[in-house]
Amino acid sequence: MADEALFQFLHSEIIQYINSAETGESENGRCVSKLENMGFRVGQGLIERFTKDTPRFKDELDVMKFICKDFWTSVFKKQIDNLRTNHQGIYVLQDNKFRLLTQLSAGKQYLEHAPKFLAFTCGLVRGALSNLGVKSIVTAEVSVMPACKFQVMIQKI
Amino acid sequence: MADEALFQFLHSEIIQYINSAETGESENGRCVSKLENMGFRVGQGLIERFTKDTPRFKDELDVMKFICKDFWTSVFKKQIDNLRTNHQGIYVLQDNKFRLLTQLSAGKQYLEHAPKFLAFTCGLVRGALSNLGVKSIVTAEVSVMPACKFQVMIQKI
Repeated sequence: MADEALFQFLHSEIIQYINSAETGESENGRCVSKLENMGFRVGQGLIERFTKDTPRFKDELDVMKFICKDFWTSVFKKQIDNLRTNHQGIYVLQDNKFRLLTQLSAGKQYLEHAPKFLAFTCGLVRGALSNLGVKSIVTAEVSVMPACKFQVMIQKI
Repeated sequence: MADEALFQFLHSEIIQYINSAETGESENGRCVSKLENMGFRVGQGLIERFTKDTPRFKDELDVMKFICKDFWTSVFKKQIDNLRTNHQGIYVLQDNKFRLLTQLSAGKQYLEHAPKFLAFTCGLVRGALSNLGVKSIVTAEVSVMPACKFQVMIQKI
């Protein structure tokens, strides 16, 4: 409980700070991209520790399952609720109660703020995958809060 | 282990980001004060959750003991090693292996960077105390890494 709260509060503070620090025309875009980059580096660091004693992964799907179960649980205290793939390099990770959105009110008028609350996590997933040798583009989308979907597009090298 | 790492990585990212965002003459001072303010708000939020089911504190010393034991353990996974007071409103909290300094190399040439790594925690303590009705000024000092002392000066109202 305590750890959860610490992460959540810190995450909100970062969003607020970056949001106020990045001023200019494309402020919103820059804020999101800064958060994404921050998430990327944290994801790289975390996955390195988490997989220290993990046996080698069989394939891409095996890596994705690890992200959905072990990685998600250690960061967000729950697993991803649903993982889908088209078996052609696109994976959709659905979290029905995404922890970093539960602080936001569910009203539709807040939907426009959702990207700021998802950017760090998109980066987190991209960074974790990157350190496992999987290059990807990660985007997120919210339809009804606090549920959201992360789409991972694997970049073939 | 995972939670610890998440907090540590996030904390480093914030320092780096704020450090690069705050440019100008008094950049170092502003960076430290931004971090302190961030810690203050996080401390306020955290203590509210931690003390939800805690009985009322007897006195100031009782509050300080709670900070040194329960609060410190939940954030830093260890207790404060030594608590001293002059019984006139000054408390010194010593942590012999402060978690947010263990990432820094122990060389003396890195001592000048220590304030950035302590500012958030100074604010954290000040925020927690503030929400418990104790107004204070919190400063920190490092002599030999990764040991450090936090000095709490109670402000009588």
